[in-house]
Amino acid sequence: MHAEYFNGFYRGEILAVSRLMSVVERGGEEAEAILNEIFPKVGRAYRVGVTGLTGAGKSTLVNELTRRCRLRGQTVGVVAEDPTSPFSGGAILGDRVRMQDSTGDEGVFIRSIASRGSETGLSACANELADVLDAFGRDIIFLETIGIGQLEYRIRYSGHTTAVVLTPDAGDDVQSLKSGLMEIGDIFVVNKADRAHAQRYADDLRSMLELTGSSREWLPPVVNTVAVKGEGVDELMEAIERHRAYLSDGGRFEQKRIESLQNRITTVVDEKTKELFWKRDHTKRMLEDLLEEVVSGQKSPYQAANEIIAAQPR
Amino acid sequence: MHAEYFNGFYRGEILAVSRLMSVVERGGEEAEAILNEIFPKVGRAYRVGVTGLTGAGKSTLVNELTRRCRLRGQTVGVVAEDPTSPFSGGAILGDRVRMQDSTGDEGVFIRSIASRGSETGLSACANELADVLDAFGRDIIFLETIGIGQLEYRIRYSGHTTAVVLTPDAGDDVQSLKSGLMEIGDIFVVNKADRAHAQRYADDLRSMLELTGSSREWLPPVVNTVAVKGEGVDELMEAIERHRAYLSDGGRFEQKRIESLQNRITTVVDEKTKELFWKRDHTKRMLEDLLEEVVSGQKSPYQAANEIIAAQPR
Repeated sequence: MHAEYFNGFYRGEILAVSRLMSVVERGGEEAEAILNEIFPKVGRAYRVGVTGLTGAGKSTLVNELTRRCRLRGQTVGVVAEDPTSPFSGGAILGDRVRMQDSTGDEGVFIRSIASRGSETGLSACANELADVLDAFGRDIIFLETIGIGQLEYRIRYSGHTTAVVLTPDAGDDVQSLKSGLMEIGDIFVVNKADRAHAQRYADDLRSMLELTGSSREWLPPVVNTVAVKGEGVDELMEAIERHRAYLSDGGRFEQKRIESLQNRITTVVDEKTKELFWKRDHTKRMLEDLLEEVVSGQKSPYQAANEIIAAQPR
Repeated sequence: MHAEYFNGFYRGEILAVSRLMSVVERGGEEAEAILNEIFPKVGRAYRVGVTGLTGAGKSTLVNELTRRCRLRGQTVGVVAEDPTSPFSGGAILGDRVRMQDSTGDEGVFIRSIASRGSETGLSACANELADVLDAFGRDIIFLETIGIGQLEYRIRYSGHTTAVVLTPDAGDDVQSLKSGLMEIGDIFVVNKADRAHAQRYADDLRSMLELTGSSREWLPPVVNTVAVKGEGVDELMEAIERHRAYLSDGGRFEQKRIESLQNRITTVVDEKTKELFWKRDHTKRMLEDLLEEVVSGQKSPYQAANEIIAAQPR
């Protein structure tokens, strides 16, 4: 299956990796077959998660980081969640435009993804596409993700180093940061650091990290950048390298790998189990009947749910 | 169980509703018992979802809307996802401060929630807290949520009317909006409409909605507001009322209620099934053994997942 793609893939052809990624992105059995095939080759790339809200400047930062990696002779893969326009199936305009700098260079492969139907699906897919680039032999993979709320936690598993990109906006204060974001960041980037309040914001952030992180072995550094001018990007690159050196100590890297693999297994099991569950005729019928009782007020949704659960074999 | 709270709750005591909400927020069996008890009283309140990114001005808008509801003699409940600070279990500073206007009035009840461990948990919890306020007799409930990516889809089920709050920022363009956001909005609010580019942004948004929504029965209106000055909030209130009138036509309201109840049942089943699944000794052992094989490269995570699924009774 897809033998011609694999041949091209192993020969290092960009078109082949692109096609394999399209199949992986669609999901299903074909995707799984590809991921099984490439799995033995996955694990060599260093993965850097770059997360933050829309407009924080993630793409520009990734572009600048990519350029620096290329200067060192490293090959780069980028997987980016991307706004999907209703006008097309994929990305139009928006962030992607700013990354055109790196195109035309075969040492850089950029892939935007839309969602695969669920938030779990989205992150799972990003990780899987990174796997393809990893097996393809890319040295560094940047995962650019719009992190918010609990979603950021996922990135902990997919990136070896996670950089959280923030911007100092008038009226924002560091204390309104979600604790989730505080916990996942290995490095904090204050981008658009030429704005008013930026230094104050960075200082507050640093104090907060020191306060909350006193028990952590790795105290996340705060790096100021102005991505559009390339300012601070060298410092960010150094911070990433320092964190990489830290991870390679004392089995931390291997521990992350194990956690990531366990997370992958359980996510796949959960998604498939859920799908199988609601496809069964028996479950479907039961849901229909119980929904009627809930709608008419005879049962609560919780009682209905418990009945469905109790009816399962175990 | 919790009889004293229920007595107070039925007598309309704010302290009792607050305590019941705390139990519901913790989740588990006690939460379920409360939700079962109140279910027959749930369904009278009108629910308005207000969703958008941090900093869009959702809280200020909700505060302004709340004031107008109060002037009409309606009681209001607010459930808001809130940044959780590492300094305290709940919300500190941040958005909540701006809503203090309405406090001291027993006709307004504001509840901030943190996460209950998963993105599904978070929205489920927001809906459940809204149920408590609904059963308590509030006329209008505002659900203020940080919507992003697929998460916004959840709100479709929890709010009768969903207002998506956007802000025109330099360099933003309407086409970079996620299609998910486009789909869930019944009303689009361009807040901070006194900024440069705001009118252009609103016009683009309107054109886009007309283009994509030509097949929809309800064409979402675009309302310009400057929430901090209270500008445009009356128009937003009118838009909400118009959408409410639209829903009450031709069984749409009942259809939404049924969808919402079905979604609640399946969400509870999915969450509980997942939890039960990984608690079984058999599954735990299997995961441990298979993880070893995956770590050593003998199997891929997908092969491991399939083995776990295949070993389940059905």
